[in-house]
Amino acid sequence: MEGPGNPGRFVTTEAGPSDDKAGNSCVDFPVAVVLPAGGTGERTGLQTPKQFCTFLNRPLISYTIQAFERVPWIETIVVVISEESTDLMTDIIYRFQHRKVRVVQGGSTRHRSICNGVQALNQGPVRKPKVVIIHDGVRPFVEEELLYKITMAAKEQGAAGAIRPLVSTVIATTSEGFLDHSLDRAKYRASEMPQGFLYDVIYQAYQRCSESDFEFGTECLHLALQYCGTNAKLIEGPPTLWKVTYKRDLAAAESIIKETLSRSVCIIAGGSAQATALADALQQAMASLDMVQELDIIPDLMGDNARCLSRDWNFVQVSVSSPRPCEVEAIIRALEAAERTVLHPAVLVWEAASWERSVGRLTEIISALIRDRSTALVGQLLQA
Amino acid sequence: MEGPGNPGRFVTTEAGPSDDKAGNSCVDFPVAVVLPAGGTGERTGLQTPKQFCTFLNRPLISYTIQAFERVPWIETIVVVISEESTDLMTDIIYRFQHRKVRVVQGGSTRHRSICNGVQALNQGPVRKPKVVIIHDGVRPFVEEELLYKITMAAKEQGAAGAIRPLVSTVIATTSEGFLDHSLDRAKYRASEMPQGFLYDVIYQAYQRCSESDFEFGTECLHLALQYCGTNAKLIEGPPTLWKVTYKRDLAAAESIIKETLSRSVCIIAGGSAQATALADALQQAMASLDMVQELDIIPDLMGDNARCLSRDWNFVQVSVSSPRPCEVEAIIRALEAAERTVLHPAVLVWEAASWERSVGRLTEIISALIRDRSTALVGQLLQA
Repeated sequence: MEGPGNPGRFVTTEAGPSDDKAGNSCVDFPVAVVLPAGGTGERTGLQTPKQFCTFLNRPLISYTIQAFERVPWIETIVVVISEESTDLMTDIIYRFQHRKVRVVQGGSTRHRSICNGVQALNQGPVRKPKVVIIHDGVRPFVEEELLYKITMAAKEQGAAGAIRPLVSTVIATTSEGFLDHSLDRAKYRASEMPQGFLYDVIYQAYQRCSESDFEFGTECLHLALQYCGTNAKLIEGPPTLWKVTYKRDLAAAESIIKETLSRSVCIIAGGSAQATALADALQQAMASLDMVQELDIIPDLMGDNARCLSRDWNFVQVSVSSPRPCEVEAIIRALEAAERTVLHPAVLVWEAASWERSVGRLTEIISALIRDRSTALVGQLLQA
Repeated sequence: MEGPGNPGRFVTTEAGPSDDKAGNSCVDFPVAVVLPAGGTGERTGLQTPKQFCTFLNRPLISYTIQAFERVPWIETIVVVISEESTDLMTDIIYRFQHRKVRVVQGGSTRHRSICNGVQALNQGPVRKPKVVIIHDGVRPFVEEELLYKITMAAKEQGAAGAIRPLVSTVIATTSEGFLDHSLDRAKYRASEMPQGFLYDVIYQAYQRCSESDFEFGTECLHLALQYCGTNAKLIEGPPTLWKVTYKRDLAAAESIIKETLSRSVCIIAGGSAQATALADALQQAMASLDMVQELDIIPDLMGDNARCLSRDWNFVQVSVSSPRPCEVEAIIRALEAAERTVLHPAVLVWEAASWERSVGRLTEIISALIRDRSTALVGQLLQA
């Protein structure tokens, strides 16, 4: 029950049809990604840097890597990390079966780290990319469609970056801490990630930039403009691009991840007529909730029904007499073997001798378990 | 189990010692608040405007109002809402016993709404305030200490506003959608709420400003500067000041609210020696978790033990034989009467004939219930 979720699963729900939207056949040049993930996460106030914080047994950085791995035309993902995190990162790559990742050691500032990542793409076994995408280890929700737009604009214009409208007004301050003036929100944008560059543009920008840029700079688009004369094309991205910065952002990220998971329910009713009647009543009660997508009833997971294990559903066993512990364990073991329990943990067992009274309550509990993804309750026997 | 939480409860945990920090004795002039809450919340993508979204059975706007009501030197809170929401707001004021609120109807833009709120403070029964604080219905986490600083700076300087560092680089765009230049993050700040004004300054600013300001403007500090020549004092606020804007922010707000709730546990063990031994084992197991603050064991909620009901604790009953349903109901009814179940819903009943094997599991479940505040499981019988 503690194992990692199937890395392929989350992808499918979110990516959408890559051929239609992103037209991957058009990307006929090599594209690589540099993913700085060396931050200490001091703004979250937590001990663990935020890229290594875990949601549903999977660290944030792995979700971000996955978002790029699912894009067929991205060849290489260079993850730039601090020396201390090397072992941890190696373990994550192994556990979540990341296939396109190369790990590169970071520098003392953000720009030094990105520069190391860019240079690594000019050495060693991989072929030098035409376009390099620079992103952030702590922005896990990037879609193929936007990556495609950024990549194509970078190829044509030399540089491209995602932007978002400003949420707050931006103001200039005097040195004494008073308002100097406020900016017209319509003329300014927040610069977000991903950004894309012709490899030669970003490589040259880092060759030419100053120590002060390396030390205090934050904006890659600015370096491309200042040192290569390249005005980046700006592309409006969706709100989910935001960067996990504060502790509250971890809760926000977790809720987005949970929402991408299946809300369909498979009720295992056993052979008894009474339990099947309970399952039918549940099906009716849950149909009236927006929350549940689909609901199916099966007697068990044997024979032909075992194929249900390949569906991304939440499994609930109901029983009208005390279920034998070995039956419950058998179901959980089957789900574990199919790597279902971690992402879809609403496996509970409901013993309901007088079930007519408790359909409403069981409906409420199943909905709450699917919403909260409370792994602690997997396999728990609840009694009406 | 569906009733609202005690409005006083959340306050106490969060406010801190008001005398020491904020020195309320120093605020010897009338202060009022204008709280625009007429937004449609279209950026969340939800049907309910975000100020009316509910966390733990209480709408967001009520948390925000509460944050001001707990401050003794704030006399009046003018909540500005759209006509459609009048009944809903009246109901919220009644249910959560808000005592300082006046409801005023909003205008067609943010500035028109705030202006209505400011003007309402110059009419009717309340005395005209010296300083008016302008905040946002969807920023529920404002502390007395910051309100005090803003108020005093507004009294001395005429205007004051909370600021935060920029999270993203801000860039200027060309009309063709290319990067023009990026701003030096060190010189700019995000303008946040609350803001404070001498009443006469903000009143005059709204008298003098143009239709275009009313229509397109967003920044009150800007109006005070342009129309009254008042340069606002800027005061750095904490990260929790952020504005609930997108759907993900709702999850973030909920997690912050949950964190302010008590994590102490009161185990009701009944009279039996076996159940008391289980409770002792649980106490040991939970002591090793950071999660739980304190843990106490009592036999029941009768007599002297009934005083436990006045503590903000999470109650768990354990039993080593099938508990009688009437006992469980009696406990839940006692907690409901003391308005405990909504905010501290980890009331579950654990029947554990062979409990030695299940201490670890019970510890895990109790921790998860306290963390998730899953109201659906209140009073649920779980079986080892």
